[in-house]
Amino acid sequence: MRLVVTGAAGLLGQRLIAAVLKRGHLTGSDGVSGPITQIFAFDRAEPSGFQDERVIAVTGDVSDPAQIAKLIDGDTSSVVHLAAIVSGQAEQDFDLGMRINVDATRVVMERIRNAAPGAKLVITSSVAVFGGSMPAVVPDSYVWKPQSSYGTQKAINDLLLADYSRRGYLDGRSLRMPTIVVRPGEPNSAAPSFASGIIREPLNGLDADCPVSPDTVLWLMSPEQAIQNILHGHELPASDLGGDRVINMPGLSITVAEMLRALRVVGGDAVADRVHMRPDPRVENIVNSWPGDFSADLAHRLGFTHDVDFNGVIEAFVKHNATQTRAH
Amino acid sequence: MRLVVTGAAGLLGQRLIAAVLKRGHLTGSDGVSGPITQIFAFDRAEPSGFQDERVIAVTGDVSDPAQIAKLIDGDTSSVVHLAAIVSGQAEQDFDLGMRINVDATRVVMERIRNAAPGAKLVITSSVAVFGGSMPAVVPDSYVWKPQSSYGTQKAINDLLLADYSRRGYLDGRSLRMPTIVVRPGEPNSAAPSFASGIIREPLNGLDADCPVSPDTVLWLMSPEQAIQNILHGHELPASDLGGDRVINMPGLSITVAEMLRALRVVGGDAVADRVHMRPDPRVENIVNSWPGDFSADLAHRLGFTHDVDFNGVIEAFVKHNATQTRAH
Repeated sequence: MRLVVTGAAGLLGQRLIAAVLKRGHLTGSDGVSGPITQIFAFDRAEPSGFQDERVIAVTGDVSDPAQIAKLIDGDTSSVVHLAAIVSGQAEQDFDLGMRINVDATRVVMERIRNAAPGAKLVITSSVAVFGGSMPAVVPDSYVWKPQSSYGTQKAINDLLLADYSRRGYLDGRSLRMPTIVVRPGEPNSAAPSFASGIIREPLNGLDADCPVSPDTVLWLMSPEQAIQNILHGHELPASDLGGDRVINMPGLSITVAEMLRALRVVGGDAVADRVHMRPDPRVENIVNSWPGDFSADLAHRLGFTHDVDFNGVIEAFVKHNATQTRAH
Repeated sequence: MRLVVTGAAGLLGQRLIAAVLKRGHLTGSDGVSGPITQIFAFDRAEPSGFQDERVIAVTGDVSDPAQIAKLIDGDTSSVVHLAAIVSGQAEQDFDLGMRINVDATRVVMERIRNAAPGAKLVITSSVAVFGGSMPAVVPDSYVWKPQSSYGTQKAINDLLLADYSRRGYLDGRSLRMPTIVVRPGEPNSAAPSFASGIIREPLNGLDADCPVSPDTVLWLMSPEQAIQNILHGHELPASDLGGDRVINMPGLSITVAEMLRALRVVGGDAVADRVHMRPDPRVENIVNSWPGDFSADLAHRLGFTHDVDFNGVIEAFVKHNATQTRAH
């Protein structure tokens, strides 16, 4: 079977492709599991690092229908659409966010509808679709009220994916992800980038600013757990989903203070002391508008899973980081 | 002040323009009430019947940016965007629904953002954004889960309007309307068209089929009440709304059996006996996916109102109908 991954050069894209290669097979929309014959790895910049003849790197603009037409055709079994403009940048450049986060998703959906009808489509949504006054634990039945353009754009995708699925144009699954922590590499302009930074930088011997109050509650998922859930979401039979195509993922509800305590346990005092509290109202406003805990009942019923504790999340980061460093 | 009304040839468009002309003034986005100098009445077909020099009829395609650019400019104080493809047609022709119900709304919002930044925009949303399992009385905090393309499209507009407002591009208000009953004229392809038909046709001496069970609960608003609420929604100061730009309107929660009982009281036995129960699963499926009662707490707090009883709704229809008949 042929898989298309957009945003293939990003953290989740790279890890997903690696995981699919290792696994070797996926279940198509016909419910039949088959060996992976090709993975089209699409991104703006050429995704690198895959020494596997099944991976075909394709560079281009995800909002260009002509390029998506070349990427997705009748042989495409599944698309995992991860390409997106992150929250901070989508807030700064509204038009860019609409073009990549909404219009490009529509281009992908339209192409599947016309060229590969019924193919699976997995997209990632975000807790940024929620906002305003919320209960401490947000149920699946809670209204969407985004307080950012990014959240607005993700919610629009969720609506479209559900309707395209209902109409039988494609077999969609939108996984509403918690904040992914610990992200390796450089900070990005996503508002919750700090949540990775306050763990990653100290472990790499660098100082880090924490822009939010220690009692800020975050809803987190490790990259390893995210990949596991994306694969699980892809593999679920359509009959298990019915009309429930937008799924709040389970996550780890944790305060910043608890995260820093775990850093002290795993990394030691010298590491933990590299974090400095420097409140930034711009980041606090965005992050505080996102809920810190979800019931995620539907996800639990469907067998999605979450990280067990934050010590484990840090340890997985340290281990993966060390592997990557050795490989270079 | 200059007002633009799209969908001006429709029921609500015509009634709104008549009500604005009678009222003579509206409050601009600067909070200052001023006399109505011009109303641009836009529709596919030329809106007729306004013998008032303040009304300028404009025909065109609402999804064409060039035509909307001519319609809305720096002199535009307010836009009431009512143009839409109704639910039945949007379900049958997905592309047409997306073009008119989503893309055209974006064209209107983009034009306001660029040519009349901060101008007021009133749109009408629908209870069709709700679906799936719901409590008997749906609170404002309940999740949107449209079961139709029409509901999906209206929910997308709601999200966009809230974000454009939050960003200060325009001063938006989306009024989530109950089913409008009694509509005069011919049946249309909207799924709840029967709800008007079972009252209107018998009063006009015609037989009518009722495609849903008598215990079906509907959430209704008369055209008179709808116009009153659209005007109220337009006039509310932005400071009263804050971030609450999408408002579930209050309505009348009533069973089909109660509607028919009111028809018998107001119209008499001969009229009521013209209604025949003929279940149609296609209509029942759509209508049963919509909730029959809402708390509408926010709307009540903001001073929106609902019809007192259904007898009054029928009487208002009879009175308005008689006036229209005399006028022709």
